[in-house]
Amino acid sequence: MRNANRQLKLKSRPVGLAGPDNFEESIAPIRQPGDGEVLLETVYLSVDPAMRVWLKEDPGYVPPVEIGDVMRAGGIARVIDSKIEGLQTGDFVAARVGWQSHPTLDAQGLHKLDLDLGSVEDWIGPLGTTALTAWFGMREVGAIASGETVLVSGAAGGVGQVAGQVAKLEGCRVVGIAGGAAKCAFIADELRFDAAIDYKSEADLTDAIANVCPEGVDVYFDNVGGPTLDAALANIRLNGRVVICGRISQTAADELYGVKNVGLLIGKRIRMQGFIVSDYQDRYDEARRWLSDKLKAGDIKQRLHILDGLEKAPEGLTMLFEGTTTGKLAVKVSD
Amino acid sequence: MRNANRQLKLKSRPVGLAGPDNFEESIAPIRQPGDGEVLLETVYLSVDPAMRVWLKEDPGYVPPVEIGDVMRAGGIARVIDSKIEGLQTGDFVAARVGWQSHPTLDAQGLHKLDLDLGSVEDWIGPLGTTALTAWFGMREVGAIASGETVLVSGAAGGVGQVAGQVAKLEGCRVVGIAGGAAKCAFIADELRFDAAIDYKSEADLTDAIANVCPEGVDVYFDNVGGPTLDAALANIRLNGRVVICGRISQTAADELYGVKNVGLLIGKRIRMQGFIVSDYQDRYDEARRWLSDKLKAGDIKQRLHILDGLEKAPEGLTMLFEGTTTGKLAVKVSD
Repeated sequence: MRNANRQLKLKSRPVGLAGPDNFEESIAPIRQPGDGEVLLETVYLSVDPAMRVWLKEDPGYVPPVEIGDVMRAGGIARVIDSKIEGLQTGDFVAARVGWQSHPTLDAQGLHKLDLDLGSVEDWIGPLGTTALTAWFGMREVGAIASGETVLVSGAAGGVGQVAGQVAKLEGCRVVGIAGGAAKCAFIADELRFDAAIDYKSEADLTDAIANVCPEGVDVYFDNVGGPTLDAALANIRLNGRVVICGRISQTAADELYGVKNVGLLIGKRIRMQGFIVSDYQDRYDEARRWLSDKLKAGDIKQRLHILDGLEKAPEGLTMLFEGTTTGKLAVKVSD
Repeated sequence: MRNANRQLKLKSRPVGLAGPDNFEESIAPIRQPGDGEVLLETVYLSVDPAMRVWLKEDPGYVPPVEIGDVMRAGGIARVIDSKIEGLQTGDFVAARVGWQSHPTLDAQGLHKLDLDLGSVEDWIGPLGTTALTAWFGMREVGAIASGETVLVSGAAGGVGQVAGQVAKLEGCRVVGIAGGAAKCAFIADELRFDAAIDYKSEADLTDAIANVCPEGVDVYFDNVGGPTLDAALANIRLNGRVVICGRISQTAADELYGVKNVGLLIGKRIRMQGFIVSDYQDRYDEARRWLSDKLKAGDIKQRLHILDGLEKAPEGLTMLFEGTTTGKLAVKVSD
C-alpha cells in the first residue's frame, strides 16, 4: 500500500441526498512531485454542505465535480515530499486535497499551517474555513453591533457554533435554532448561547422565535434556508440584516421552498445578503489571529465530529444533510 | 359648498383590490386654522400602491387607516388661510392632505413648493415623492454604476418610469418590464429605455430577460414582487443588487407568492434590500435639484395619468392594481 493513492471518485450524480452509492473507490499510483509541486498525505478531510452543491450539473458559482473525478474537498495534509520553496517534509498544509490519501498538488491554494496559532485539529475546526465563514459572515455581512439580538440557524453545526460564539464575544444576545434536545443542550449549556430553539419540537417556529426574541431580531445568520428563513424574516426588526450563508434544507430538495416574507424587506428596511468566504481571502490572517486568541483564552469552544477512515467520507456527506452530526464534521484519513 | 370640506372615509377594509365600495363620501364643515395651522384647498392627490398597504389591519411599518377615517394620501394643495409663519395665502404645499377637499393641517410634514424648480404638475410628478423614491432607490440602494445593466419592473408606472430614466442618465443600460404593448412602446420609444419586455406576452419571463440581458443583470429595481422577482433573480450577475421598492403583485393578493430563487444570493453574492423613501428625507432637496435640472434640460420625461374629481380617487386605487394606468397616477381635485 506504500505506493497507493486511495481515491474516491464520483460514480453517479446524486438525486436527493448524496451518499456511498454515488462514489467508488480506486487505487492510483502515487505521483512524485515535479518542480513547483508537493506530495501530501491527507490527515483530515472537511465535510461541508457546499460539497453537495458541487455535485450538481450546474453548481452556479464553481465548476461541477464531473463523473469519474476524485471528489473535491478541502482538508489538512502532511508534506511527504516537496518541490515548493518554503514547504518541507513534515509541514502541515490546508489544501483542496480531494477525497484521496496521497494527492500531488501545485502551490495554488496551499496554505502552510502556523501551529503557533493552534493544533492541527484546531485548523480543521476553529481556525479552518468553516470558522472563517462564520467570522466574516457575522462581522462583515451581518455587521453585528454590541447589544443586538442575533439568531443563528444550524446553530450546532460547523459554521453555526462559531457564528454564535463570535456574536456572543462581540456583545450580542444570541439565540440558536437546532434540531433536537441534544443539540439545543449543547449550544445552550456548552456554548452558552442565550437561548436555544428546537425546531423539531415547535409547532410554529415563527411564534417560537417571537417568544424568545420579543423585541425582534437584528441579525439572522441563515445556514438552512427554507421555512426557517420565512420564520426568521417574520421576526426581523427595523434595519435588520439577513446573512444568507447556507441553505442545507434546500440543497438536496426535490422542489425549492418559496420564501413568502420577502415583502417585509420594504417596511423593515431589511438587507439580505449572500456571500462566499473566499471573497475575504486576503483577510484570513486577521480572522485566524482573532480566533486563535479567543481559543487560547478558552473563549471559543469547538466540537468536532470525526469519522474514521477515508471510506467514511460519503457517509459523512449523508449524515450532514440528515442532521445527525453535532459540530464540525471531518474525516480522519491518517494519524 | 363654500363652507364644505368634501371627504372620502374608509367604510370597510378591502379584501383583494380596494375600490369605490370601500369608501363613502361625507361633508364636514371647513375648520378655520388655529395658531400653527393652515387651511388648504387640495389640488392634486397622489395615488400610490402603498395606500393599499395602509388599508390593512396591520400594515407593519405605519399605523393603519381606521374605519371612519378620512383616507390617508399625499398631495399638492393651495394655501387658503395660514397661521404658520412663512406660508401665505396662494402658496402651494406638498402635504399629507388625505382624501378631502379642504384639510386644516399643522406644520408637520408640510413642504412649501419651490416653483422655480418646476410647475405644480412637476411637483406631483418628477419632483414628487414617487420620483424621489425612484432616485434614492436606484442610486443609494441600487448603487448603480455607469455601464451596468439595470432591470426595472413596473417600468411604465410612477416610480418605474423615473427609476429607469435615472439609471439611463447615470450611464446604465436599462431594460423595462411592463404589461402590454402600449406600455412597452411608451418606455422604449418615449423614455428611450434600451429594451422593453411585455410580461403579458412572454411564455417564460426568465428566458425573456436572459434574451435581452445575455450577460445578466447588475441591478434589479423591483416594483412588483412575486414571480417577476424570481425571474429577475435567476438573471442577476455576480455582486448584483436587488432593490425591493414595491410589490404591487402581492399587496392585495389572497396568498403570498413564495420566492424560490433566494438561494442564488449565496453564489452570486447578491444584496437584496428594502427601503422607504422617507429614510432619505434630509436629502430630498439634493434629489429635487438633480431632477429639476434634468427636467429643464429635457432629459427626463414624465407621463401623468390624471383622473378628474375627488370622487375618482377610489377608482384610481383599483386601476393602479389592475395595471390600467400608464405613468404617475394622480387625482385632480381643484384647479
